[in-house]
Amino acid sequence: MLKRVLIANRGEIALRIQRACRRLGIESVQVFSEADREAPYVATADHALCIGPAAAGRSYLSIDRLLLAAELTGADAVHPGYGFLSENAGFARALEQAGLVFVGPPAAAIETMGDKIAAKRAMRAAGVPCVPGGDGALPADDAACRRIAEEIGYPVIVKAAGGGGGRGMRIVHAPGALAEAVATTREEAARAFGNPALYMEKFLQAPRHVEIQVLADAHGNAVWLGERDCSLQRRHQKVVEEAPAPGIPRDLIEAVGARCAAACVGIGYRGAGTFEFLYEDGAFHFIEMNTRVQVEHPVTEMVTGIDIVAWQLRIASGLPLDFTQADIRRVGHAIECRINAEDPFTFRPCPGRIARWRPPGGPGIRVETHVESDYAVPPYYDSMIAKVIAHGADREEAMARLRAALAETRVEGIATNIPLHVAILDEPGFRRGGVGIHHLEHWLKERANG
Amino acid sequence: MLKRVLIANRGEIALRIQRACRRLGIESVQVFSEADREAPYVATADHALCIGPAAAGRSYLSIDRLLLAAELTGADAVHPGYGFLSENAGFARALEQAGLVFVGPPAAAIETMGDKIAAKRAMRAAGVPCVPGGDGALPADDAACRRIAEEIGYPVIVKAAGGGGGRGMRIVHAPGALAEAVATTREEAARAFGNPALYMEKFLQAPRHVEIQVLADAHGNAVWLGERDCSLQRRHQKVVEEAPAPGIPRDLIEAVGARCAAACVGIGYRGAGTFEFLYEDGAFHFIEMNTRVQVEHPVTEMVTGIDIVAWQLRIASGLPLDFTQADIRRVGHAIECRINAEDPFTFRPCPGRIARWRPPGGPGIRVETHVESDYAVPPYYDSMIAKVIAHGADREEAMARLRAALAETRVEGIATNIPLHVAILDEPGFRRGGVGIHHLEHWLKERANG
Repeated sequence: MLKRVLIANRGEIALRIQRACRRLGIESVQVFSEADREAPYVATADHALCIGPAAAGRSYLSIDRLLLAAELTGADAVHPGYGFLSENAGFARALEQAGLVFVGPPAAAIETMGDKIAAKRAMRAAGVPCVPGGDGALPADDAACRRIAEEIGYPVIVKAAGGGGGRGMRIVHAPGALAEAVATTREEAARAFGNPALYMEKFLQAPRHVEIQVLADAHGNAVWLGERDCSLQRRHQKVVEEAPAPGIPRDLIEAVGARCAAACVGIGYRGAGTFEFLYEDGAFHFIEMNTRVQVEHPVTEMVTGIDIVAWQLRIASGLPLDFTQADIRRVGHAIECRINAEDPFTFRPCPGRIARWRPPGGPGIRVETHVESDYAVPPYYDSMIAKVIAHGADREEAMARLRAALAETRVEGIATNIPLHVAILDEPGFRRGGVGIHHLEHWLKERANG
Repeated sequence: MLKRVLIANRGEIALRIQRACRRLGIESVQVFSEADREAPYVATADHALCIGPAAAGRSYLSIDRLLLAAELTGADAVHPGYGFLSENAGFARALEQAGLVFVGPPAAAIETMGDKIAAKRAMRAAGVPCVPGGDGALPADDAACRRIAEEIGYPVIVKAAGGGGGRGMRIVHAPGALAEAVATTREEAARAFGNPALYMEKFLQAPRHVEIQVLADAHGNAVWLGERDCSLQRRHQKVVEEAPAPGIPRDLIEAVGARCAAACVGIGYRGAGTFEFLYEDGAFHFIEMNTRVQVEHPVTEMVTGIDIVAWQLRIASGLPLDFTQADIRRVGHAIECRINAEDPFTFRPCPGRIARWRPPGGPGIRVETHVESDYAVPPYYDSMIAKVIAHGADREEAMARLRAALAETRVEGIATNIPLHVAILDEPGFRRGGVGIHHLEHWLKERANG
């Protein structure tokens, strides 16, 4: 088992990783920027070290500083959390070269999945259903691009191979707009991702976002832990997530899940990961794989009882999975709300001091947060301050418990998006279940227009 | 459905009831003594009313004041929680006479179960296995008492009909000590419970305490929600509780559980209740029924997913149970620690101001508490400040999660029994599971003697 794990992250996920370490008898080393010096999770870690100023580039995103911190504190492994360096193959490789364990997949797997063209090719080869379209880079030749688009059928979407998470993409509805769209996206891709390669896919009009959580060990075993529906998004950011996905035939999900687990074995994947799909007209279409733990992992934990972060650490320690696919039992339904320090109408971040923090509780309620009364939310990072997750025997009960939990939560001193979540829980489309990825933005527009 | 429920209690159970009310759309009225004015749950209730000074006799135990509070606030029902007036038939009857709903069983059921002789007779008639011994009051005649004891076989235990919870009882090992034991217990019983009636039972040497949780509605439906093992006790006070009970054959528990549910229907019971048993040599022996929600109800909630307090309110509203015995699924194992503001070695209560309160969290952890940072634990009431409950796929995992949760908990400003709980979780007997009700006290003595 790993002895001492450096947590190269902050906020709720840092505390979440600390807890998993404590659960397994692993010491935690919490690094922090000057802006996070007073954070409660810094005080509760076994060891803590300041690695630089507030700017992430000189702290949480600095490979050099993190390597130095690991050396200074005698850590034998690094857990990257999500965001920051969690999907940076160079970081994984640098750790390996320094003789440290990266709690995540092999660098090569991060690289493959980071290149969306390579990822799609690998997934197609593994029998994972993909969005219709080529799995090669778009040629420079306009006429050739037009032929590909015609083959796929408009509307199409042009995407950067190095993109992901909704960045570096452009929808094209007719042949006339194609050449310019390709040129602009290529420029952006080169600038933003250092990789001008593009690919083209069918643009799905109103799909749902459904993803499959996997765990793979270093001994050739892989399982999938069920799906999550994360269709409620705003500007490609997930707002509410749930498991299972309402109204999708189980046999369809079972088939896709089994393919994902098999693909993990095929590509030598290791650790936790998520296959993201668009779901439309009864079919799954792979879009990308996240090679790290996700914000929304607790809904899967509440439905399966499996501690995903603890398994990341066990797998990184070289332990095999001690259960098989057949052992996994899903019980009930879970829904998660991301609570952000932001104005619930303008969505502007609202950092500042939380005078009083009273989290909810009771049967079926789990809260993942790093904040407490008299904690100041720094303005430098993501605005998420907590996740409130409700589990119930069915979706109805999970919604009712979540509704009561949000009503109970008290945050004084800063604005949060709790009123938005309450409104979402009362919104007929969400209550029915199974809305598409554009539903929330449409509804927000309608609401804004009165 | 009830509209407005007065919560005639304080502390964690007051907040627990508030949450259940909010979950069901019922308004809560929180009464409080002057000592509890600053308690967080007073601020979060829909309505709140001071009913008197710190002394419970002039606040939480005053039927007149509670009736007045209900009238003044327009409450249509009263939830008594546990302790205080929760098992007071007079209170239930006074509410009924005032046209208010008592969230609990009919007054007659409280009365029957409050008289241990009547309770035993009712249970024996319902086929619930009882401790060997008579189910009538002991005669005044010494010789007659001796004949009864001989029939039962020494050692025997002489108990007050009005007692319960470990009060008003005396063990007798040989005929010579019987007459005096009966006389002394009778005197005590008359003084403490206003009822000099006694009964005699076989004294079980090293039994376990195993109890069955039931729910019964007003429409003739009753279910049992599994058992709890509460054998870890000190001075008849439960310290750690768990579900299911380790190592007891399922078919045996199923049979007893079914009898308990049937007995509820037989005696016209309504609401939540608990049948307490001593378990020894593979047999269950009924000792008493608690006609209220219990401190340890969350372990059953975590294993079954059923919200017991919400069901108390639904049943009091006249709703029928919407599930049957066959629908109840038990998943995994749950263990609860009662966190008290007390010295972990001397067990002396340690009230005072909590400078900082950092509760644990993470997968499978539930915390029931009314305290927060900068809350002062008043010296007037029970010293329990929180319950930490861990759920896991099996007992092993529940113990590991609880262990990590306790390690994470920070309480600054007052002493708590967390170190005792940590020691218990490491104690070989507890880890093995299935210890008897004297185990903890023996172990504490050994520990004290070095």
